[in-house]
Amino acid sequence: MSDNQLANKSQAWSALFSEPMSDLVKRYTASVGFDQRLWRADIAGSLAHAEMLHSQGILSADDHAAIQRGLNEIAGEIEAGQFEWKLDLEDVHLNIEARLTERVGIAGKRLHTGRSRNDQVATDVRLWLRGEIDEIGGLLNSLQRVMVEQAAKHADVILPGFTHLQVAQPVSFGHHLLAYVEMFARDAERMLDTRKRVNRLPLGAAALAGTSYPLDRERVAATLGMEGVCQNSLDAVSDRDFAIEFTSAATLVMLHISRLSEELILWMSQNFGFIALPDAFCTGSSIMPQKKNPDVPELARGKTGRVVGHLVGLVTLMKGQPLAYNKDNQEDKEPLFDTVDTLKDTLRIFADMLAGLTVKPEAMRAAALKGHATATDLADYLVKKGVAFRDAHEVVAHAVKTATAKGVDLAALSLDELKAFDASIEADVFDVLSLEGSLNARNVLGGTAPAQVRAQVARHQARLA
Amino acid sequence: MSDNQLANKSQAWSALFSEPMSDLVKRYTASVGFDQRLWRADIAGSLAHAEMLHSQGILSADDHAAIQRGLNEIAGEIEAGQFEWKLDLEDVHLNIEARLTERVGIAGKRLHTGRSRNDQVATDVRLWLRGEIDEIGGLLNSLQRVMVEQAAKHADVILPGFTHLQVAQPVSFGHHLLAYVEMFARDAERMLDTRKRVNRLPLGAAALAGTSYPLDRERVAATLGMEGVCQNSLDAVSDRDFAIEFTSAATLVMLHISRLSEELILWMSQNFGFIALPDAFCTGSSIMPQKKNPDVPELARGKTGRVVGHLVGLVTLMKGQPLAYNKDNQEDKEPLFDTVDTLKDTLRIFADMLAGLTVKPEAMRAAALKGHATATDLADYLVKKGVAFRDAHEVVAHAVKTATAKGVDLAALSLDELKAFDASIEADVFDVLSLEGSLNARNVLGGTAPAQVRAQVARHQARLA
Amino acid sequence: MSDNQLANKSQAWSALFSEPMSDLVKRYTASVGFDQRLWRADIAGSLAHAEMLHSQGILSADDHAAIQRGLNEIAGEIEAGQFEWKLDLEDVHLNIEARLTERVGIAGKRLHTGRSRNDQVATDVRLWLRGEIDEIGGLLNSLQRVMVEQAAKHADVILPGFTHLQVAQPVSFGHHLLAYVEMFARDAERMLDTRKRVNRLPLGAAALAGTSYPLDRERVAATLGMEGVCQNSLDAVSDRDFAIEFTSAATLVMLHISRLSEELILWMSQNFGFIALPDAFCTGSSIMPQKKNPDVPELARGKTGRVVGHLVGLVTLMKGQPLAYNKDNQEDKEPLFDTVDTLKDTLRIFADMLAGLTVKPEAMRAAALKGHATATDLADYLVKKGVAFRDAHEVVAHAVKTATAKGVDLAALSLDELKAFDASIEADVFDVLSLEGSLNARNVLGGTAPAQVRAQVARHQARLA
Amino acid sequence: MSDNQLANKSQAWSALFSEPMSDLVKRYTASVGFDQRLWRADIAGSLAHAEMLHSQGILSADDHAAIQRGLNEIAGEIEAGQFEWKLDLEDVHLNIEARLTERVGIAGKRLHTGRSRNDQVATDVRLWLRGEIDEIGGLLNSLQRVMVEQAAKHADVILPGFTHLQVAQPVSFGHHLLAYVEMFARDAERMLDTRKRVNRLPLGAAALAGTSYPLDRERVAATLGMEGVCQNSLDAVSDRDFAIEFTSAATLVMLHISRLSEELILWMSQNFGFIALPDAFCTGSSIMPQKKNPDVPELARGKTGRVVGHLVGLVTLMKGQPLAYNKDNQEDKEPLFDTVDTLKDTLRIFADMLAGLTVKPEAMRAAALKGHATATDLADYLVKKGVAFRDAHEVVAHAVKTATAKGVDLAALSLDELKAFDASIEADVFDVLSLEGSLNARNVLGGTAPAQVRAQVARHQARLA
Repeated sequence: MSDNQLANKSQAWSALFSEPMSDLVKRYTASVGFDQRLWRADIAGSLAHAEMLHSQGILSADDHAAIQRGLNEIAGEIEAGQFEWKLDLEDVHLNIEARLTERVGIAGKRLHTGRSRNDQVATDVRLWLRGEIDEIGGLLNSLQRVMVEQAAKHADVILPGFTHLQVAQPVSFGHHLLAYVEMFARDAERMLDTRKRVNRLPLGAAALAGTSYPLDRERVAATLGMEGVCQNSLDAVSDRDFAIEFTSAATLVMLHISRLSEELILWMSQNFGFIALPDAFCTGSSIMPQKKNPDVPELARGKTGRVVGHLVGLVTLMKGQPLAYNKDNQEDKEPLFDTVDTLKDTLRIFADMLAGLTVKPEAMRAAALKGHATATDLADYLVKKGVAFRDAHEVVAHAVKTATAKGVDLAALSLDELKAFDASIEADVFDVLSLEGSLNARNVLGGTAPAQVRAQVARHQARLA
Repeated sequence: MSDNQLANKSQAWSALFSEPMSDLVKRYTASVGFDQRLWRADIAGSLAHAEMLHSQGILSADDHAAIQRGLNEIAGEIEAGQFEWKLDLEDVHLNIEARLTERVGIAGKRLHTGRSRNDQVATDVRLWLRGEIDEIGGLLNSLQRVMVEQAAKHADVILPGFTHLQVAQPVSFGHHLLAYVEMFARDAERMLDTRKRVNRLPLGAAALAGTSYPLDRERVAATLGMEGVCQNSLDAVSDRDFAIEFTSAATLVMLHISRLSEELILWMSQNFGFIALPDAFCTGSSIMPQKKNPDVPELARGKTGRVVGHLVGLVTLMKGQPLAYNKDNQEDKEPLFDTVDTLKDTLRIFADMLAGLTVKPEAMRAAALKGHATATDLADYLVKKGVAFRDAHEVVAHAVKTATAKGVDLAALSLDELKAFDASIEADVFDVLSLEGSLNARNVLGGTAPAQVRAQVARHQARLA
Repeated sequence: MSDNQLANKSQAWSALFSEPMSDLVKRYTASVGFDQRLWRADIAGSLAHAEMLHSQGILSADDHAAIQRGLNEIAGEIEAGQFEWKLDLEDVHLNIEARLTERVGIAGKRLHTGRSRNDQVATDVRLWLRGEIDEIGGLLNSLQRVMVEQAAKHADVILPGFTHLQVAQPVSFGHHLLAYVEMFARDAERMLDTRKRVNRLPLGAAALAGTSYPLDRERVAATLGMEGVCQNSLDAVSDRDFAIEFTSAATLVMLHISRLSEELILWMSQNFGFIALPDAFCTGSSIMPQKKNPDVPELARGKTGRVVGHLVGLVTLMKGQPLAYNKDNQEDKEPLFDTVDTLKDTLRIFADMLAGLTVKPEAMRAAALKGHATATDLADYLVKKGVAFRDAHEVVAHAVKTATAKGVDLAALSLDELKAFDASIEADVFDVLSLEGSLNARNVLGGTAPAQVRAQVARHQARLA
Repeated sequence: MSDNQLANKSQAWSALFSEPMSDLVKRYTASVGFDQRLWRADIAGSLAHAEMLHSQGILSADDHAAIQRGLNEIAGEIEAGQFEWKLDLEDVHLNIEARLTERVGIAGKRLHTGRSRNDQVATDVRLWLRGEIDEIGGLLNSLQRVMVEQAAKHADVILPGFTHLQVAQPVSFGHHLLAYVEMFARDAERMLDTRKRVNRLPLGAAALAGTSYPLDRERVAATLGMEGVCQNSLDAVSDRDFAIEFTSAATLVMLHISRLSEELILWMSQNFGFIALPDAFCTGSSIMPQKKNPDVPELARGKTGRVVGHLVGLVTLMKGQPLAYNKDNQEDKEPLFDTVDTLKDTLRIFADMLAGLTVKPEAMRAAALKGHATATDLADYLVKKGVAFRDAHEVVAHAVKTATAKGVDLAALSLDELKAFDASIEADVFDVLSLEGSLNARNVLGGTAPAQVRAQVARHQARLA
């Protein structure tokens, strides 16, 4: 028997196998090309497992010490870029284990006692993902902070609020930005809920049925900072809910980014001209010398498709799989990894980009003066004079029709003209018809009045501090 | 001006419009065909809104009373199937409001004060979905209870546990069922997390900007049992995260159902013969007289696609939408409604079906005796004799090769034959090679030993009580 | 034995079954609620099958005549709305067959000779879908015709062409519309390719293995106008490629509609003001009296998600299904039916809506004068003077920078100012810098010059005639 | 002005830009990391473009010669792995163009005359994809050939045919394999239909509007072997239908692979034992020494999700994009590239694996003898004796019930027992009840009789020759 059976895998998987894999099969089935990024989690899991094996009397102190030393040296090698990842050894787990045995001999062969790659990989991915969720939480907070700061600065800037992309009512630009802060705050909340279900320990489930060694799974969970132990071994090795739930949460983040991107692109187009993005986030054209294109929000909008695609890929992957572990599951990693990378890059770049946003209040104001943005205010004014809302709505529709025919905004009609639609209209109507009047009037909780915006800014600042 | 402007919508939307909709456009844009199912929520929301308008002095006591009376009468009409839903009135909201004005006159026209259909529909869907989530929670629990009961009954039944659909290790059938209980328990947990984000009040956001009426949104939220108020009016009317998050959670439930279905179908095929489903859940063939087909799990597996499709539909819907409300959002309802219906029907039918499951322990046992299911136990036995795990693994591979060549299971080799592979093997090896020995050995937390299964059953029973 | 065994299915499927289905199971598994729309195809298929059975000597002339008479009467009943669809009879096939036996006795029981519901439903869906594809082809052509007509009318109208939603170069509005004509022409082409694969006959595959009756499948195919016979019985009953391929093609149509909708919505917003949609295709707001919202394109954009969702649903459905027919496949119908309905309604409504489009050339022209739309023309001008393109690009970037700093368009710089950037610039530069000069210059095949647009209009008119 | 403006992009895109991109933005927006694989197409397109520019008198003979020389040298550098791809130069196009200018000076700067990266990248992707489709066509044919050969070898091997995974009727294993040949044949057909729409030339559309240079686009198309010229410049640069259509076609291939994989996995499980896959396509377990797992079909089944995900990603990407080119489109490449890679690897590995398939006819036969697989034959027998099919169906259901109660297969009942169900049953019934009798009886076009299978094999061999 060889000193290191794993090292012989290139000849045959085990004595049962009569031929080695072809290179195509090796490449097709190997995961080490992408799962090597789990190495920190793999080593952390192995250290916790070995510590428990020793404390349970399954592993001697010497073996434990050798494994600790060996794994720490391997961590050093990997960090230094000196570790040689071998396709023949399939994945991150066998690569590290084979190297461990090379370095520390038979103690290395004892590390895999009471575990399988099935529970090992599930543990690694969960540990790794937990760390990424924490980073994403931080990035979501940074982005929110930037947007809250911009909102604070622009609480009094008036923008035409749209529904159906038609001018609806004037809103505060700060208020508009805070709508996204709400979205990203929900995203952060959702990530935390997901984290609870990620942060549970599969290790000890072994291949699928548990193990005959007297493991202390709670101890390993505690060592690794996990909130609990997966209570069923079959579920532990076959569950990929956590990956899907995370990718769903990531999809919602990207949907919010896609909506914000759509607006940034609109606002930067010459027909809006509401904002400018910093040059560092734009590119030019290879043919049109005048171009400055909002590449970053466009790409981010496009990358939404990427993450949605990953979600669908993962869901399709799990559909109809019988228990317990199937090789299909290996396909969970690339979509999950790319989702994390895409999300982190996008959140980082948006925080940077929005910090440098140039806001053009005059263009916003000019746009708000088109489209009879204060028509609802006139209806509300009439209600306060005793007209039922539905009737007031119809009166104002007539007034708008007249204004449109004259080619002016509703607010530009004279008092006499307005009175013709309802006799109760008086000079104070013009306060109501002004953009500021309209804005300030919406002083209800969650409304766009600058006073409300400032209150929300304060709430968010406290929350994010 | 007409007594009831809404009733005239078939002529033109308002004075601004020069022509009525064609029938095709009406049909294309109307939602009343499907959103009428929101009527209870719509009326509950209107009652809470009216109560608050009155308490804030915006609505007189008489108007409030008239509205209360009218809405209650309308509820009676709808329940009695006497309410005439009109396509001309587009949606559930205008249908009820127009009918209210018909019944109570001008008070009805005052109900819409300080709100818009944009915040109204968001409120209705959230209220309705909250109720459905509660029902789904109950159904998830019922299904779990049935499965826990079956698990308790079959804790000692031995099934071949599979990985890669190859025989891996013997597991308890009860343990296998409890894997699904874990999944459905996570689903219930996730539904509760989603519920928090569903159960927030958009009402008061009005069209998009809040309102100039001094509404008390917290009061409405309290009346409706909601946990909070949406803090940004633009977000309140444009957010459909809750629908996507719910549909993601529903997708996970259906994925679990698809995996269970796959197994039920496999187990009922003649080549397994592990179970029989009750006749009431099967159908025959129009051509093959001998057939009894597991239609229910097959359809359920198929319906997974339906729910995944709805998730993708909703995500695609929201991608790139600028704020605030756009008509696109109307398309959120049918996928959401169908997801709820599919989920509820499926959970109900699975609880019924699994309660009537016939289990065939002999067939399971016979299958577990193929495939050298206790080979790992032999390796573990060698480890306890001092062989390193990796070496033991290779020793057993040789033994399996020999047994396979002889056409027998590993457990059927003689002691002498086994000793040839490792001299440390002694007569006690046969305890280890028996199915029961293997099963009982996996007595680690979450493992398949019947003692563990019974402990888990007790935990679940307490949890679900 | 009963006179009509099918009528007894509510008691039990066949003698093999010990209990009837519960109502929930019936509802869950029945398809008659939605597959009844296949009745014409079902009857056409049965008539062709009976005709062949008779011509092969399997069915007597009397039985054949009775079946013909019975099926025609049933067709009459269904058309008249007098046919009673029964949930107990599961699907359209058993409903019609049971009714046939009621009407014509034992001859009805002989119709199902040599076929199964598995090949029958596959045949029905293909026949039905073939008809729908033909209708959709017609609707795609109608829509193209409307757009070609509008393109002809507006070949000389100048619009700012955008890339990245930034002003790029002036384009003809007619040219812009023709871009969509290309898309819809490709869609029609793709539908025809799909039709070939839809229009093949599964009938005769029976349950899965073919049949022992000497059927003439080619004859049935000819009777039904099908292009060929499915050559493998297992494939014939389990294949749903045609549904997926059709839904993919439909998804592309809806993607094109979504892009057009996005543009219509943008163009109708006050900040563009390029077009107006007819009032009949817009709705107002229940709160904002001034609103006229482009509901139809918004909904159509939203319905893209619906069709994408159906595609994903179908794909998920088929993933990993073993051969041959599984009940999962029943779930193919609702997404397919809804895709067809959505597509047909959308194409119809777009043809109507676009025929009534109001175009506002002044607003388009004004917008084209922002953003230095002719900067590329200046670079091309310099190339013609001997400057290398990459250098010319950089010269113009400097000129644009100066113009922007002065707050004017590039075309508004004086000759002296321009000369400062490159001495070769002369007075003829202003021809190049005008919108018309730029437009007319792009007189390459497929380019935006009105001459090209008119040539394309002629080509399309000939093609669509 | 610098000698090579492109080389200065790291400082600023053009004179218009006041700051360089940050490294994060460069990395986020650059595509050179993945689009460098388009280099052959990029150079081929540039050579064709230059040739035409020269033939149109736009480029001098010297410049043309310099460009040819330079591009060929660059091709050599890339092939030799000596080309340095620079992130600062964003993409494959600017990398090659900048290098060209480095090598040949001002002639290089003239290459981009009359084109833009928008039409260039569309051309590159189409050229590249056309080549890949051709390779995939070849791989689909190879796989079919292997399967046809296996079908020829196993035309007489009897397998239980399943519907609903319940034993239905005996089928030829060769027939079963040919079902997949039908699927892959359709896939090849669909790829060819897609190829037509891929193989059209966007070049000459320039940025979006065409160009003012007198290009001969038909000449470029002819040089590149393309079937036509994109007829509308806006469509030419913004269309990604071809990528979606290809990915849809690829999704269908993978769905077929997923169904075949599911069956291979089932058949290889101990409860079926119908086949063995070659060892080279299996792996073992790190913990269970007896395991030989069908990794390749499992992974392939999982990779279906990957390709479905890419399809959804692409569809989401294009949803709602206004014309013409937007940066979002850059996100089309990675899903497309990975789809091609996944498809090619999977097809290759399946052809290899299936060539080495071990078939176990005894196990198949034993399984076919369970489940009353010939019950339909008994019903057909009764029909030939004059019983109506529906009545015969019910008679046989009774017989099956009796056989099941006795624990035997229908074919094992005695003549007397059978006669009790219908007096017309005679001794010849046993021919009908045998597996071979049943198989041979299904001698209809497309049926499972070995004679039919051999005819189909011959047809496929001729087709694939």
